[in-house]
Amino acid sequence: MSHQHFTLLKTTNSARAGELNTPHGRVLTPVFLPVGSQATVKTLTPDDIKSLGFDMLLANTYHLYLRPGIDVIKNLGGLHRFMVWDGAILTDSGGYQVFSLSPLCKISDEGAKFRSHIDGSEHFLTPELAVQYQEALGADIIMVLDECTAYGDSRKKVQQAMERTHRWAERCHKAKTNNNQALYAIVQGGMFPDLRQASAEYLKKLDFPGYAIGGLSVGEPKDVTLPLIEQTDALLPQDKPRYLMGVGAPEDLVEGVARGIDIFDCALPTRVARNGALFTRKGRINIRRAAYSKMDSPIDPSCDCYTCRTFSAAYVSHLFRSEELLGLRLATIHNLRFIRNLMNDIRKSIMDGTFQSFREDFLALYHTTNEQTRVEQKGRWLKGRGNQVT
Amino acid sequence: MSHQHFTLLKTTNSARAGELNTPHGRVLTPVFLPVGSQATVKTLTPDDIKSLGFDMLLANTYHLYLRPGIDVIKNLGGLHRFMVWDGAILTDSGGYQVFSLSPLCKISDEGAKFRSHIDGSEHFLTPELAVQYQEALGADIIMVLDECTAYGDSRKKVQQAMERTHRWAERCHKAKTNNNQALYAIVQGGMFPDLRQASAEYLKKLDFPGYAIGGLSVGEPKDVTLPLIEQTDALLPQDKPRYLMGVGAPEDLVEGVARGIDIFDCALPTRVARNGALFTRKGRINIRRAAYSKMDSPIDPSCDCYTCRTFSAAYVSHLFRSEELLGLRLATIHNLRFIRNLMNDIRKSIMDGTFQSFREDFLALYHTTNEQTRVEQKGRWLKGRGNQVT
Repeated sequence: MSHQHFTLLKTTNSARAGELNTPHGRVLTPVFLPVGSQATVKTLTPDDIKSLGFDMLLANTYHLYLRPGIDVIKNLGGLHRFMVWDGAILTDSGGYQVFSLSPLCKISDEGAKFRSHIDGSEHFLTPELAVQYQEALGADIIMVLDECTAYGDSRKKVQQAMERTHRWAERCHKAKTNNNQALYAIVQGGMFPDLRQASAEYLKKLDFPGYAIGGLSVGEPKDVTLPLIEQTDALLPQDKPRYLMGVGAPEDLVEGVARGIDIFDCALPTRVARNGALFTRKGRINIRRAAYSKMDSPIDPSCDCYTCRTFSAAYVSHLFRSEELLGLRLATIHNLRFIRNLMNDIRKSIMDGTFQSFREDFLALYHTTNEQTRVEQKGRWLKGRGNQVT
Repeated sequence: MSHQHFTLLKTTNSARAGELNTPHGRVLTPVFLPVGSQATVKTLTPDDIKSLGFDMLLANTYHLYLRPGIDVIKNLGGLHRFMVWDGAILTDSGGYQVFSLSPLCKISDEGAKFRSHIDGSEHFLTPELAVQYQEALGADIIMVLDECTAYGDSRKKVQQAMERTHRWAERCHKAKTNNNQALYAIVQGGMFPDLRQASAEYLKKLDFPGYAIGGLSVGEPKDVTLPLIEQTDALLPQDKPRYLMGVGAPEDLVEGVARGIDIFDCALPTRVARNGALFTRKGRINIRRAAYSKMDSPIDPSCDCYTCRTFSAAYVSHLFRSEELLGLRLATIHNLRFIRNLMNDIRKSIMDGTFQSFREDFLALYHTTNEQTRVEQKGRWLKGRGNQVT
């Protein structure tokens, strides 16, 4: 990297405020990346994403490799031009999708053999190819290929996967040719604190410009996740950004920041939006409920999003009850703006030195009720619509 | 009506340019109304519709009566406020939907007994209720309740339905209490020229501020439709607007204007958009086709819509192939802007006195190929999504 990729500006307890310097602009941290796996944040234009206040988004190498194909995007001038997004982009390497979406996945030291979840065709992904593809896409931050394990996997299996992830990280590092992209390593080690420690220490020595924590939020209880994040972050270099992959529920963002995370991405805010679950500072509401169907006021009167500034809760409720496509977009706008505002408030409180009280106040008010579980199981009218591919 | 509802400004052969004066602004004719049956033009915000250049849209009493309910909208300040649209609105009475969507429809002189297509519940609609509901919704132009017949129905059946439609038109006229709304009559008479003539002459005597031509485009061949339109329009008063219901394919808009139509509405441009069929001046294209998947240029380089100004055909093609929701919105924007530009060009050519050559040039270039039929049958990923309810 010809410039300094990350600057740590302020620390309050373990919470950190900083900024990322990317070829597509400055990104203030802690930051949440909206998920645009298939080169689109579902329902939104790039202008919408910009208006919501986001400077960086995530796209996925696995999805784009399968459709439309890496070469197609490369020949059209790269991912930024293809999706007409001039902000920063982080691409995931595809390791997690090979593990979670492919109907068949065979891992060897050489790489991962997998089948397309779209047409069943067979493919082979190596660390070198993962870097080559991400260089062709041209994201600002790219990720090493890693081997993921599941909650409940044996220590032996987790250790083997971790060691392979380390070898693959070195191979990615060597394969890299583009100095404008920052390649992040991924700490693995499953639920085993000593393996997490070994992974963090090993990768730290290789001196990557950023470190992700992978293999968490894969079904384990939160009282397992949070200490592992805390422990891992404590071992990572202070001057490098830490990225917690796949986490994005409001309460988890606050708890992640409290443990030193700088970057998050997650499909949850946009996915639950499409199911009618909308964030408020008091928790999620189900906009389909009868209580909202006649409500003249906005979903959240304190919210400054386009949806709340423009429409009544009754109208948004009507759109969901009538299975109207505009509802998905208005709900997505609301939830992403909620997350954006939350991250802004978090950052401000870190800069002010008041993060600890912000965190306590937020968590005291924000209820995670049973309602949200019910909402996530709804949305039957979206089934089979590529809605689940994130 | 306290003001003049319609002003005819210019006639070129049978084609007419005029303007409608509504409580929500002036609307230049000939005009196409985007369809927002459920108080939303699918995928678009009211701001989008305005940006596309539309000043009036259509909503549907049948749909809004069933969901969210007329009282809900009335209590929320009427339809304009409910959907946050400050332009003009025309509401259809629900006659056609009772006939086409209800699983059971029993017509008596008193009114129409029907079942909800949503939950099967039984309802009864009379001419008086149709007016009362449309007054509660508060549209600028409202429609009489009519009885529709199908292509192939017997002369006896068509005549009875026509005569009932006439009686209902008189009852609607009497039931009307709001002088800010213009109530249009609907000419029926099926495919029988003498019945069409009788219907036009009968309704003309009742002196409505506007006349719709109903019961066409219900499956009959175009060489049956066009002469009936021509004949009916010739019998209607010159100083009143003529509205051809449910017509909106580009070639049909041109042919309708040529026969004296001032107002059109149709779900076709937005529905086929969601199936990936995009209008160009040369005809419809199927954006899913391989030919577009690598195309760096816009769908139509001469188009000034947001989609064409911003994205490559390859990107829009990718969104459709990947079943991404943004594709539906970008395609809807393109097709509606195409129709808007077409209506603008038509109007300009009438004002210039060059409509006849515009029409010939347009129809010579615009091909209706087999491709469009195939496209309409695609879109399987949208099935069961309320997508068909228009």
